[in-house]
Amino acid sequence: MSKQFKGIGASEGIAVAKALVLAEEHVEIKNTKVSDIDAEVLKLENAVNKSIEDLENLKITTLEKLGAEKAAIFDAHKEIASDPAIKDEIINVIKSESVCAEFAAQQVTNNFYEMFASMDDPYFKERSADIKDVASRIIKHILGIAIVDLSTISEEVIIVAEDLTPSQTAQLNKQFVKGFATNIGGRTSHAAIMARSLEIPAVLGLRTITSDVKNGEVFALNGTTGVVELDLTDAIKSEYEKLAKEFADLKAELQKFKDLPSKTADGQEKLIEANIGSPTDVESVIENGGEGIGLFRSEFLYMDNDHFPTEEEQYVAYKQVMDAMKAKLVVIRTLDIGGDKKLSYFEFPHEMNPFLGYRAVRFTLDRKDIFKDQLRALLRASAHGELGIMFPMIATVDEFKRAKAIVEECKDELRNENIAFDENVQVGMMVEIPAAAVNADKFSKYADFFSIGTNDLIQYSMAADRMSENVSYLYQPLNPAILKLIDLTIKGAHKNNKWVGMCGEMAGDIQALPLLLGMGLDAFSMSATSMLRARALMSKITMAEAEELANKALASDDTPEVVELVESFLANK
Amino acid sequence: MSKQFKGIGASEGIAVAKALVLAEEHVEIKNTKVSDIDAEVLKLENAVNKSIEDLENLKITTLEKLGAEKAAIFDAHKEIASDPAIKDEIINVIKSESVCAEFAAQQVTNNFYEMFASMDDPYFKERSADIKDVASRIIKHILGIAIVDLSTISEEVIIVAEDLTPSQTAQLNKQFVKGFATNIGGRTSHAAIMARSLEIPAVLGLRTITSDVKNGEVFALNGTTGVVELDLTDAIKSEYEKLAKEFADLKAELQKFKDLPSKTADGQEKLIEANIGSPTDVESVIENGGEGIGLFRSEFLYMDNDHFPTEEEQYVAYKQVMDAMKAKLVVIRTLDIGGDKKLSYFEFPHEMNPFLGYRAVRFTLDRKDIFKDQLRALLRASAHGELGIMFPMIATVDEFKRAKAIVEECKDELRNENIAFDENVQVGMMVEIPAAAVNADKFSKYADFFSIGTNDLIQYSMAADRMSENVSYLYQPLNPAILKLIDLTIKGAHKNNKWVGMCGEMAGDIQALPLLLGMGLDAFSMSATSMLRARALMSKITMAEAEELANKALASDDTPEVVELVESFLANK
Repeated sequence: MSKQFKGIGASEGIAVAKALVLAEEHVEIKNTKVSDIDAEVLKLENAVNKSIEDLENLKITTLEKLGAEKAAIFDAHKEIASDPAIKDEIINVIKSESVCAEFAAQQVTNNFYEMFASMDDPYFKERSADIKDVASRIIKHILGIAIVDLSTISEEVIIVAEDLTPSQTAQLNKQFVKGFATNIGGRTSHAAIMARSLEIPAVLGLRTITSDVKNGEVFALNGTTGVVELDLTDAIKSEYEKLAKEFADLKAELQKFKDLPSKTADGQEKLIEANIGSPTDVESVIENGGEGIGLFRSEFLYMDNDHFPTEEEQYVAYKQVMDAMKAKLVVIRTLDIGGDKKLSYFEFPHEMNPFLGYRAVRFTLDRKDIFKDQLRALLRASAHGELGIMFPMIATVDEFKRAKAIVEECKDELRNENIAFDENVQVGMMVEIPAAAVNADKFSKYADFFSIGTNDLIQYSMAADRMSENVSYLYQPLNPAILKLIDLTIKGAHKNNKWVGMCGEMAGDIQALPLLLGMGLDAFSMSATSMLRARALMSKITMAEAEELANKALASDDTPEVVELVESFLANK
Repeated sequence: MSKQFKGIGASEGIAVAKALVLAEEHVEIKNTKVSDIDAEVLKLENAVNKSIEDLENLKITTLEKLGAEKAAIFDAHKEIASDPAIKDEIINVIKSESVCAEFAAQQVTNNFYEMFASMDDPYFKERSADIKDVASRIIKHILGIAIVDLSTISEEVIIVAEDLTPSQTAQLNKQFVKGFATNIGGRTSHAAIMARSLEIPAVLGLRTITSDVKNGEVFALNGTTGVVELDLTDAIKSEYEKLAKEFADLKAELQKFKDLPSKTADGQEKLIEANIGSPTDVESVIENGGEGIGLFRSEFLYMDNDHFPTEEEQYVAYKQVMDAMKAKLVVIRTLDIGGDKKLSYFEFPHEMNPFLGYRAVRFTLDRKDIFKDQLRALLRASAHGELGIMFPMIATVDEFKRAKAIVEECKDELRNENIAFDENVQVGMMVEIPAAAVNADKFSKYADFFSIGTNDLIQYSMAADRMSENVSYLYQPLNPAILKLIDLTIKGAHKNNKWVGMCGEMAGDIQALPLLLGMGLDAFSMSATSMLRARALMSKITMAEAEELANKALASDDTPEVVELVESFLANK
């Protein structure tokens, strides 16, 4: 009889393949006294250099396969490996204690690790994992232990591991890695995000999977339901193969929608667009038939950098996206930094509740110099296609007016300098703060468009940080209060003939789609890989039935009633 | 000519009196080697014992003058002074380094101070100030330096200081201390809160006032406008004396309203009630003609304690308030702990954004044992008057239903045990989360009443922590979006014939009052000292004009327009 294990379905799809179990490596390091100090220092120098080389290669491969945002992790790792303070301290320990390089390296990096791990700040806590990853790489190079290179896998496998580090995930080759299953991690862990981006089925949080499954054993994994099944009978195995085929067929079926416009069953046209994080993401948007970019986060330019990017640096990046998208609308969000997103070259004030703090437009309105560099770059890029400039974290009409005035100031400058830009560039705002949703009918007198950022809107409206385990149950996109805020936003925009998009995760959620249609949402922006399925579903729904469904949902008391309504609606589609 | 200085008006009223400038003490401590170790240890022991004795006395005085919540600070100080870990380490240093007690004490307490001061957590940061306060007390006792006792002041003065510590503020005698002016601090600092509670005029944040004013010099202070004036001419001095008299007359005038019901000019009855933090606060509520308690925070029972309070301990405290308020409604809020409010005997999970975290009903719904102790105590107290039980931080209808079900369970138990309670006790909820305001028409099917908590509602609706300096400008009670959420709450309650109170700071705000009247608010709960002024203003406003004003405010784009509307309305009252 087969055995089932239930974990967290973190990336959709079905896989049936041999397990490649990555053993938890335990490298034992002894405190060996040495007499040839110079030899140990040389070992260390070589190991550090090899590590830097590795990381540079990993960065290049990741950049090609996964884009700049994901490759950035290796810049951070390289920085750690190249840090002279760390290396000098290891050399000091070798010399002062006459110990072997690996022992000194472990001792010193452990100190750094613990310093960061004990910090309250989650950003630094995360850095501690990076330090551990880099330290382990250097120590292995000292000891001449081979570092498992997942990119050399050349037969179809499902990877089974305690967890996957960033460097490991970045090396996965989709052709051979059919899925992965890990002991720890959840839907929002690094490994989960990478799995969805690579479209590799994944089940995480299985606790004991590394000991439950034997290396080389064929087993099945369903990334949609979160189920892993071992000891497969032939019948069950072919059941999974059938499911896998259906999943593949569905994906192929969806390809038909690639070049079709997004329309409801009764012919109402909508837009289905993509959210992107860097210019390299555009390729996948075009491949998946995106009708525009509903959200281009500009943070990558700031975070993967050692200085505030210049106007010219930004212009080049924005133009690249505008050129690729041709005449399709590209909405670029101005800098949303601060809160949990920090910069290595600028210190934000420490805050007790960073999500309720100094971030995004609250920061750029104070730092007009930084804001203007970005706005000038955006305006110049507007000459190369259809651009929407979007301000994040707008709470009051006054903030919007002040931001808009700085755009006008930049336009004046460019006119005086005879630099081309689109005089009709749209200037809009995110609706992600409850006050903005409630006040939407006022904002729409001034903004050209809205884009609803549901992730933040839900967090603020429910007063619940979804990263906080004990209150994540309150992250309820289908709660009637959230629907009501979305409805107020859409009605408020349409009152002044403005359009409304949505760029939060909810826009790509199949359960939310009929409700959003019913409330009159104009543009749906989601991850590139979700677009075709949304377009296919939309083609089966009429506006009349969507409106009826939305009205019932808005009149519901609580989330479970809405879920029931939507599920019974979708069962007939 | 006189000189004016502008600071932050932190507590209303006018004072003209002699300055009592508290010098910044600088106690120089030398690293003196000693031979008689035992003598130094004895000095330390005596100093510690004297400090504990001081603090016990301070606690008793404060409890009498200011109530349990404010006296609690001295329990914390006593705990630090009595901490054996600190004392033992000081003794160790004396012995191992053969140094004098004061040097050892300074060294050890500095280490503790810095450990706490460097923590990210604001709770621990605050503890560092307490450590410094206690350390300074112990060191002064070792050196035989007199500790300034502000309670011995016996002539009329205005105290001028860098800042006032909790132990100093607790000693102020209102009869002689006519006001205080400090270099640092703002409206929400500890000194400001104490000043308002004592009704002593105060201007804070004057930066250099300790050197601007000479000890013994007569000067004037206006706590309403934040102005301090030196080198008074006779004309200016009598101007201030006139203002002070007007202020006193106004206060006397307000006394007329003490026993009158709260009514609009056209006779519509409302309730004006008080927020309290402990049973000792009730006296001031009765003195100021409160028509009920709109919010009794139950946290003091948990925070000033070393264990979760038992059912019996709670019953005694609740009954005390019920007895004092006789047949008037007392609304007691169930435990709102977590977030920024911690307990010494229970560890909450560390969270990145505690305001968006595991607190209040989110915690008590998980810890039914703790919740039931409180609910049983409340139900038993309900037999002694008119009680409303109120749940904090309700976001979804499901949460309210679950909390209410636990009340029903407790009622069943009490019935079986033949213990008296009021079968008709009202069970309501705070509306302080945007989703609750938006969904009020659904919640009012299940809750007996609402109380709008504007402090949190504004913070969440604007996504701005008002304690974060850079975003505190977004704390805008009169923003049209906030007004709209209040309006939705009131209309949603009235739809199902339920009443709505408000217990946030906004309820006592003179600018907000006509708007709240116009939107139909039923009960206004504020600090006891604000009630009479609110009742006086209410008597001058008709419902028709309030409604007209509220509708205009709701239709406004942004806060400045609303402020202008209200100011011109109030100018004619």
